[in-house]
Amino acid sequence: MEQIFTGLSSLAVVYRRYGAPSEVVEVAREEIPPPGPGEALVAMRRAPIHPADLNTLEGTYGIPREPPAVGGGEGVGVIAKIGDGVEGWRLGQMVRLPPGVGTWREHFVAKASRLRPLPEGLTLDQAAGLTVNPPTAWRMLEDFVSLLPGDWIAQNAANSAVGRCVIQIARHRGWKTLNLVRRPEWVAELEALGADAVLVEDEDLPRRAREAVGGSPIPLALNAVGGESARSLSRILASGGTLVTYGGMSRRPISLGAGPMIFKDLRYRGFWVTRWFQEAPPEKAAAMIEEIAALMRAGKLEIPVARRFPLGEARAAIALAQAGGRRGKVMFAMEA
Amino acid sequence: MEQIFTGLSSLAVVYRRYGAPSEVVEVAREEIPPPGPGEALVAMRRAPIHPADLNTLEGTYGIPREPPAVGGGEGVGVIAKIGDGVEGWRLGQMVRLPPGVGTWREHFVAKASRLRPLPEGLTLDQAAGLTVNPPTAWRMLEDFVSLLPGDWIAQNAANSAVGRCVIQIARHRGWKTLNLVRRPEWVAELEALGADAVLVEDEDLPRRAREAVGGSPIPLALNAVGGESARSLSRILASGGTLVTYGGMSRRPISLGAGPMIFKDLRYRGFWVTRWFQEAPPEKAAAMIEEIAALMRAGKLEIPVARRFPLGEARAAIALAQAGGRRGKVMFAMEA
Repeated sequence: MEQIFTGLSSLAVVYRRYGAPSEVVEVAREEIPPPGPGEALVAMRRAPIHPADLNTLEGTYGIPREPPAVGGGEGVGVIAKIGDGVEGWRLGQMVRLPPGVGTWREHFVAKASRLRPLPEGLTLDQAAGLTVNPPTAWRMLEDFVSLLPGDWIAQNAANSAVGRCVIQIARHRGWKTLNLVRRPEWVAELEALGADAVLVEDEDLPRRAREAVGGSPIPLALNAVGGESARSLSRILASGGTLVTYGGMSRRPISLGAGPMIFKDLRYRGFWVTRWFQEAPPEKAAAMIEEIAALMRAGKLEIPVARRFPLGEARAAIALAQAGGRRGKVMFAMEA
Repeated sequence: MEQIFTGLSSLAVVYRRYGAPSEVVEVAREEIPPPGPGEALVAMRRAPIHPADLNTLEGTYGIPREPPAVGGGEGVGVIAKIGDGVEGWRLGQMVRLPPGVGTWREHFVAKASRLRPLPEGLTLDQAAGLTVNPPTAWRMLEDFVSLLPGDWIAQNAANSAVGRCVIQIARHRGWKTLNLVRRPEWVAELEALGADAVLVEDEDLPRRAREAVGGSPIPLALNAVGGESARSLSRILASGGTLVTYGGMSRRPISLGAGPMIFKDLRYRGFWVTRWFQEAPPEKAAAMIEEIAALMRAGKLEIPVARRFPLGEARAAIALAQAGGRRGKVMFAMEA
């Protein structure tokens, strides 16, 4: 069967070498062919800029994506054209791209069988932020420690997207959160979101943390920072407690003395949502996504958007995504 | 009921302050009363000097034992006198002391109900080394990773008493051991003990380790050193592997980057045999001790004794126990 080349010229944010993200990205045009048999043309609508996307551009991410490549790992689009022999999809239907496809682009042709539908009734921003940050929070709360209602968990980077998901999901499930932030201006906002306690990190943290939880044990702590901040979390964990690391924003390692592991039985694990999706039964993943979408629709799980940028302003978008003190996700918003 | 004071004058190795072990120990005399109702007088026969005993004298151990106190945590004695109303014990029967009682002494009076019998047919050295090092090795091999026959495990400090137990128990169970040592002179001896591979630690370790195991995954590694040595073990662990720390001989922390925990799913745990005995069902602990004793009687589990000292030479004994390059345990041997 012969494909007719349309010459659809489409914007994409690409990198041709590893390096500082805002320096290596370029806005380029790519030629998009029409969808062949079994394929669909997706018109992208939103794609967030995650820390992992920036690490990918730096060449420091766990799964390298060799340049030249299109940036971005999560995103939502709509079916814009359907190839021969494709069933079960309709034009305008919201989909997410398969893993490993750059999402910072206007258009993409994929095998229809690799596209995944998205739950109904979500805004574009909600849909574009559905499959990475909320599942990370969900699984870390679910898979490491058997929490009982009223149990406390602690986390650093509490104002990050994952941190905010942790606060809201924990509140929904009846667990209490002790949240560490670096700036005092986050305290009131996270309390309004449902955080049970918010503390600014400093040296006196262990004592203030014990006060904040009224001496209750903390069996689970979530770490996206490393270094001193991870050490603070270790110090406030209960005996037998688990520290789950899902990021290393400080770029400093965790320093573990033998004593806390041996005598306090502290346990150190890591979590990577990509591997979880690779290994989980698809029906289990789909059920979780539906539960998360239901919370979003009910207004119980909100991830703020700091700002939306067109693809053409990629460098400014990335610069904002790397800036401290930002409130919420930076998103690429493509023309409808 | 009235006790008659016998004035039995008995040697003990005591410490009256925390500090450098060979400096703070003193050989003292204590007055031992005859056993009262429900009690027994134990005449000690052997007591090892473990690293944990030295840490206790330094005040750095997980459970502090405040001075003044008698040193030592493990030991074997025989029943030398039985108080009124005590049943189930006979004179000359081998027993071990309850936890928390200093063992570096000639005599001790205990409630008979707190004494534990020892399996039959063991030498004094075997009996005195039965309940700390072999159970540490046994539980670390058993409780963290489900090993299949032929699986590889790695360890540092392989020539320590626990390290030698690991080699011999793993061989008995059909698991293979990759052993790290600091001195080349240990290689041949550990190979003769049943080690499948012995490597001297150096910078090229990960490559040589992969060669030694023929590319097989290593799901479990045991760490008694910390610092660079623990880092080497981390680097040779398989994805999803577990590093169990049971000692920190280098006194250097383990430095954990976020990457290996997140992307390689490495897990870091600690093990403390004292807690295991506190929490395990007594029948499970007794069954393990019997299995270990059976291996010892069969000559399949040997812990060499570097040298035996009388209590009066406590400082020399401790100095040898702290010396590098020593082969086997240092034991106190009491007069029969």
